[in-house]
Amino acid sequence: MHDATKPAESPPRVVIDRVTPEIDAGRFPTKRVLGDEVTVGADVFTEGHDRLVAVLRVRGPGDDDWREVPMTALVNDRWEATFTVDRLGPWECAIDAWVDEIATWRAGLVAKRDAGLDVASELLEGAALLERASTRADGPDRAWLAEHARLVGGSGEQATRAAAAMSPALTSCALRFPDRTRATRWERTLRIAVEPERAVYGAWYEMFPRSASSEPDRHGTFADVVQRLPYVAGMGFDVLYLPPIHPIGRTHRKGRNNLPVAGPDDPGSPWGIGAAEGGHTAIHPSLGTLGDFDRLVTAAREHGLDVALDLAFQCSPDHPWVTEHPQWFRHRPDGTIQYAENPPKKYQDIYPIHFETDDWRALWDGLRDVVLFWVARGVRIFRVDNPHTKPFAFWEWMIAEVRAAHPDVFFLAEAFTRPAVMRHLAKVGFSQSYSYFTWRNTKAELTAWMTELVTPPVSDYMRPNLFVNTPDILHEYLQIGGRPAFQIRSVLAATLGATWGVYGPPFELIETASSGGEDYLDGEKYQQRHWDVERPDSLRPFIARLNRIRRDNPALHRNDRLRFLPVDNDRLLAYVKTTPDLSNQVLVVVTVDPHHRQTGWIELPLDALGLDATEAFQVHDLVSDARFLWDGPRAFVAIDPAVVPAHVFRIRRRLRTEKDFDYFL
Amino acid sequence: MHDATKPAESPPRVVIDRVTPEIDAGRFPTKRVLGDEVTVGADVFTEGHDRLVAVLRVRGPGDDDWREVPMTALVNDRWEATFTVDRLGPWECAIDAWVDEIATWRAGLVAKRDAGLDVASELLEGAALLERASTRADGPDRAWLAEHARLVGGSGEQATRAAAAMSPALTSCALRFPDRTRATRWERTLRIAVEPERAVYGAWYEMFPRSASSEPDRHGTFADVVQRLPYVAGMGFDVLYLPPIHPIGRTHRKGRNNLPVAGPDDPGSPWGIGAAEGGHTAIHPSLGTLGDFDRLVTAAREHGLDVALDLAFQCSPDHPWVTEHPQWFRHRPDGTIQYAENPPKKYQDIYPIHFETDDWRALWDGLRDVVLFWVARGVRIFRVDNPHTKPFAFWEWMIAEVRAAHPDVFFLAEAFTRPAVMRHLAKVGFSQSYSYFTWRNTKAELTAWMTELVTPPVSDYMRPNLFVNTPDILHEYLQIGGRPAFQIRSVLAATLGATWGVYGPPFELIETASSGGEDYLDGEKYQQRHWDVERPDSLRPFIARLNRIRRDNPALHRNDRLRFLPVDNDRLLAYVKTTPDLSNQVLVVVTVDPHHRQTGWIELPLDALGLDATEAFQVHDLVSDARFLWDGPRAFVAIDPAVVPAHVFRIRRRLRTEKDFDYFL
Repeated sequence: MHDATKPAESPPRVVIDRVTPEIDAGRFPTKRVLGDEVTVGADVFTEGHDRLVAVLRVRGPGDDDWREVPMTALVNDRWEATFTVDRLGPWECAIDAWVDEIATWRAGLVAKRDAGLDVASELLEGAALLERASTRADGPDRAWLAEHARLVGGSGEQATRAAAAMSPALTSCALRFPDRTRATRWERTLRIAVEPERAVYGAWYEMFPRSASSEPDRHGTFADVVQRLPYVAGMGFDVLYLPPIHPIGRTHRKGRNNLPVAGPDDPGSPWGIGAAEGGHTAIHPSLGTLGDFDRLVTAAREHGLDVALDLAFQCSPDHPWVTEHPQWFRHRPDGTIQYAENPPKKYQDIYPIHFETDDWRALWDGLRDVVLFWVARGVRIFRVDNPHTKPFAFWEWMIAEVRAAHPDVFFLAEAFTRPAVMRHLAKVGFSQSYSYFTWRNTKAELTAWMTELVTPPVSDYMRPNLFVNTPDILHEYLQIGGRPAFQIRSVLAATLGATWGVYGPPFELIETASSGGEDYLDGEKYQQRHWDVERPDSLRPFIARLNRIRRDNPALHRNDRLRFLPVDNDRLLAYVKTTPDLSNQVLVVVTVDPHHRQTGWIELPLDALGLDATEAFQVHDLVSDARFLWDGPRAFVAIDPAVVPAHVFRIRRRLRTEKDFDYFL
Repeated sequence: MHDATKPAESPPRVVIDRVTPEIDAGRFPTKRVLGDEVTVGADVFTEGHDRLVAVLRVRGPGDDDWREVPMTALVNDRWEATFTVDRLGPWECAIDAWVDEIATWRAGLVAKRDAGLDVASELLEGAALLERASTRADGPDRAWLAEHARLVGGSGEQATRAAAAMSPALTSCALRFPDRTRATRWERTLRIAVEPERAVYGAWYEMFPRSASSEPDRHGTFADVVQRLPYVAGMGFDVLYLPPIHPIGRTHRKGRNNLPVAGPDDPGSPWGIGAAEGGHTAIHPSLGTLGDFDRLVTAAREHGLDVALDLAFQCSPDHPWVTEHPQWFRHRPDGTIQYAENPPKKYQDIYPIHFETDDWRALWDGLRDVVLFWVARGVRIFRVDNPHTKPFAFWEWMIAEVRAAHPDVFFLAEAFTRPAVMRHLAKVGFSQSYSYFTWRNTKAELTAWMTELVTPPVSDYMRPNLFVNTPDILHEYLQIGGRPAFQIRSVLAATLGATWGVYGPPFELIETASSGGEDYLDGEKYQQRHWDVERPDSLRPFIARLNRIRRDNPALHRNDRLRFLPVDNDRLLAYVKTTPDLSNQVLVVVTVDPHHRQTGWIELPLDALGLDATEAFQVHDLVSDARFLWDGPRAFVAIDPAVVPAHVFRIRRRLRTEKDFDYFL
C-alpha cells in the first residue's frame, strides 16, 4: 500500500495560507519605505471550532532575534498584524499559529455555565491545563498559576471554582504561557525591502547641464547648474536628475536632430559615453571637474535636492573599455565590433555591452564599481537607461550588492517596454519605473492603467515615476493642447503619482515644437540650448504650487489609497487620495479636455471619507484658494481649462455649528 | 564586499513566470478530468529582442519520460500550450525556454537584407551557427546542415548565399536541433490531478433506503431501492447517493423530529453509526446484507447510476470501536467519553473521533480501511459528512492514499462552513464541495457567487455540487414559492453547475412542510417515510427533461465558460454556457420571481458567440420546444412562472438562406 505521504509526526492542525503582501511565493521581496506601517495578512484556520492564536514574527536588518506582534482576527478567518519599519534594509516576517487550549476550554466552560449545565469535568480539565501552563511560566506567575490550578480543580463549591476559572486575570495570565509545541510555522518567510521614502515620494526635475549656461552660446557647467538650483528648488522639486555627465565619443557622433553626421561644433549625445578623457567614472571636461561635481551635489543638498545620475551601460567606440576590455564587446566575424542597430537604423556611435561574454564576472564587477564610484561621491539615486536590454540576473545581483552596503541607494528603471518585462525589472530590485503615463490621456485609459498600478500585488513591488515629458517624448497631447494641456498633465502626474517628473526647462516653458514625431525639434540630446527661464508665461508658479500642495498633503505621498469617483462626464476625471487615518483627504477634479468648458456631477463616497451625509463639509481648492460648502453624496463641478483645468480640493470635515458659538450653552 | 548572490554560472537569460493553472505556488495540484484539454500558460521573456522558444514538458501517471509540446506566443510575452489528459491519476508539467540563436540570427539577416544593407558578416555568423547545429543533429540532417553551413559561409555570391540562409527548409531543420545548454527550466513543476469525468459533471439523487418500501409501514431495503432504480434513472440522474447504511446506535438515539428521546419504534438517525451488529463496514440489518448491497451496486450500474456512499467518521456510543479502540475517543476527567455538543445542545448519540489521540497512526489506517472496504465492493464516490471537523492533514493523506491505488475514486465534501475552510478542503483533495447554493436566491447573489466559483484560481481546484435541497435544508424560498420555486431552483442548479443534486422524493413531490426553520417536518433523518412517487403533480417529467438537456449539451458538462448577460430586469437572470469550440451554446433565461410575469431585454455578446450581427439566428427552447428567430445584440424575453419559469435555449447559428435553395446557382 502506498504510504509515502503519511507524516512522521502528528501534523500541526492550523493552516496558514494566502499571506499578503507576498510576491510570487517569496521569490521576490515586497517593497516598503522607511517609517511605513506594514500590515501582514493571512488566512489562519483549523478544522472544528477551537480558538486560535496567531503571531507575526518580525526581524529587521541585522537582528538576530525575532520580535512577536499579536495578530488580530478579522472576518472569514483573515488575520492581520501591523508593525512599523524603522530601519533601511531587508526585513523578514514569519507567522506562527496554534490552537489555544486555554481559550478553547474557557469558551466551552462559559457556554456550559451560561446554559446552566454541570461543569465538573470542565473544571478538572481546566485544572490540568492551568497546571501545565504553570510549568511553562516563570517568575511569580509560575506559583500563581499553580495555586489557581489547585483551586479550580479542588474540592470547593463548583460555582466558586467556576468563577475563579473564568476570571479574566487568570485567563490572560495563562494565555501568556501557551503550549506552542504543536504550533504551525508558515513554511516561508515574507521578505520586505525597506527603502528610503524618496523611493516612493518625490518630484523630479531633469535638465541638461550643458544648456544651463547663462550665456546663449557658452557650454553650461556644473557651476551653472549650481546657479540654477534656487530656480529648481523654488519650484518645489526634490530630485535633480542629470543625463550622463561623462566624456562624449567622437567616432560616428550624431549631429543636431539626430543627423547621422555631426558638424564640427556639435556636442553629440551624452548617452554616447566615453572618449579619450575617460568613461563612466569621468566627467565631461566642458562641464567641469570631479571637484565641481562634488560641489554641485553639496549645493543641491543644501537646497533640499538629491542629485540623480544616469546609468547608461553602453559605450562610444572611443570608450577606454573598448581597448582595456575588448572582450566586453561583441566581435563580429569580419573583425568589427557590433554596434547598436535596428535595421535599417544604425547607431554606430554606440557599442552595447556584451553581457554574454565569458568574462562576465569581471564585467559585472566593473559595472557595479561604476555605481560604487558615484555612491562614494554622495549620489544615492540612479536613473538606469534601458535596463530591459541587459540581463535581469545582472540587475538583481548588482542592486542587491550595492544596497547591502548602502541601503539608502535606489534605482529608477527607464524601461518603456512590454508590461511583463517592466514588472520583472521592478521585482528584481528597481525601486521605481518609468511608465506609460505620457501615452495615457483619456479618462478611460488613465483610470484603468492607474488602477492596475495602485492595486496589489503590482503596487507591492512596482512604483511608477510619472514623467510628463522626457527628451524623447513630447506627446501630441502636449504639442496640440497648449498651456492647458501642460497644466492638465502636471496636475495628473503630481496627484495621481506619489512620484512625478518634469524635463525642463522645455516643459515649464511650454515648448511644443516637435521634429515630426514625439522628438523635440532641436532637442537637447544632440545640442545645447539656451532657455529664458524667467519668461513671464512660464508654468513655474503653477508647478511650484502643485509641489507645495504635494508637500503639505501626506495623502499625496503614497500611490495606494487612490480611488476614482464616478462623474457623469467622460471628460472629467475625479479621484480622491487619503491617508490611512483619513486625517488628510485630497479630492482632485481635472478635465482631460484642454479646449472646452466641462461640467459634471461627482459621486462622493461619504462613508469611506468619514463624512456625515447629513452635514455640510468644506472643500478648499488648493490651486485657486477658493472654498466651497458641499453636502450630500453628489457635487457639481465646472472647469474651464482656459482659467485653470483642475480643482485640487482638500476636504475639511469640521464645520463650525451653533454649538461652537460662545454663548451657546 | 557582499558577494553572496553572484551566481556560480552565467545565469540563463530567459524568465518563466506566472504559470497557470498553478495553485498556491505548487503546494496543491490543479484538478482536471479525463479527456480534458489542459492549457498551460506562462509569461516567457528575456531582456532585449532575441527570439525565444518555449516547450511544455508533460508526464502522465507512471511515465518515466517527458513528452514535449511546443508553446505558442500570444501577446504581451504570454505563451501557451495545450495537451489532452488521457489517463487518470497525477500528471506533471514542466517548462523549458531558451533564446533561439538561429531564429534570432535569421530575423536580423532578413531585416538587413530588406533594408538593402551588406550582410557579409551575418552570413559568416550564420554559417558558424549552422555548423554548430549540425553537430547537434543526427541522421541525414547532420550532413545536410553541415553542407548548408559551408554554402552559407562559402565564397559564392552574397545574394545566393543569403537566399540559401533564409530558406524555410534550412531554418526549420536547424530549429529542430537547438542549443539548450543555456535553457531556463522553470523552478517548479505543475501538478495536475486527473479525475473521472463524474467528478465535475453529474446529476445526483439522494434518497433514504429505509423509505423506499412500496408498503407504507415496512422498513425499506436495498431490494426496494433496486425496484426504485428505473424511477431514478428515468429522471436522468447519474449518481445515487445513500445516507449511511450502517447499524444505528441505540444509546441516546434521537426520536422523530430530533426529539431528545426516541420512541420504541423510532429508527434513529443513520448518522448515529454503529451498534452491536457492527460499525462503518457493516450493513443495517433491516436494509439487507452485504450481498444485497452488492446487488444494488450492480443493478445501479446497469441503470447508468453510480452509488455514492456517505462517509461519516463519527460513532454512536454502541459502535464496536468504542470498546475495541477506546483511545480513538476523548475521555474526560470524570471517566466519561466526550460526546458532541454545542451548549446548550447535546448530541449524546454521537461520539466524535479524537484525532489528537497518540494512536493517530492506527486511527488513520483504520479510517482509510473503511474507504478501501467499500471501494473493494465497487463504490467509487464518497460523500463525506462534516469533513471540516476533522484535520486537513488526515484528508490530504487519506485521499492521496486511496487514489494512488484507485484513481477513479473521488470524494464530495459536505462542508457548509466558512469560505477559507471550504477552499482548503478542496485543495487537500476533495473533488467536489457542497456549496452555498441553497442560500443564494437573488440575481445579485447568484451572479457574484457563481462568478467567483467559475473563475480561476478557485475553479482550478474547487467544484461545487449544487444541491437544491438536503435532508437538513428546505430553504424558505422553496417553502414559500411553491411549484415555480422548485422549478426555478432546478433550472438554476442544473444549468449553472455541471453537477447538481436533488434530495428526493421530497423535492420532486414539492414537499414544503418545515419544522419551523429549514428542517423538514417529519424529516427522514429521524423516521421512515412513504412517498407516492407516481403522483401526477410530481416534477419528475420536468427534472427528466432538464437532465436530458444536460446530457445532450456538452456546454453544460463543465463549470467554466459561464458568462452572465446584462438584462434590464433584476428578476431575470440570463447566462450562456459554451463549449470551447462554440459548437454547443446554451442560453438560459430564468426568473427568480416565482410569483409574477417578468419581461426584459437581454444583451447578447454576439462576437463571443461567433454570431453575425447582420444575420438572424435561431434559438430553440429545449424546455418548451418553441423556436424563435432572433437578430442583433438585443433580445426580448417574457417569462410567466405559472407556465414555466425559464427558457433553456440552444443557440443554432446556421439558418438557411436563399443560397441553400436548390436552384439558387
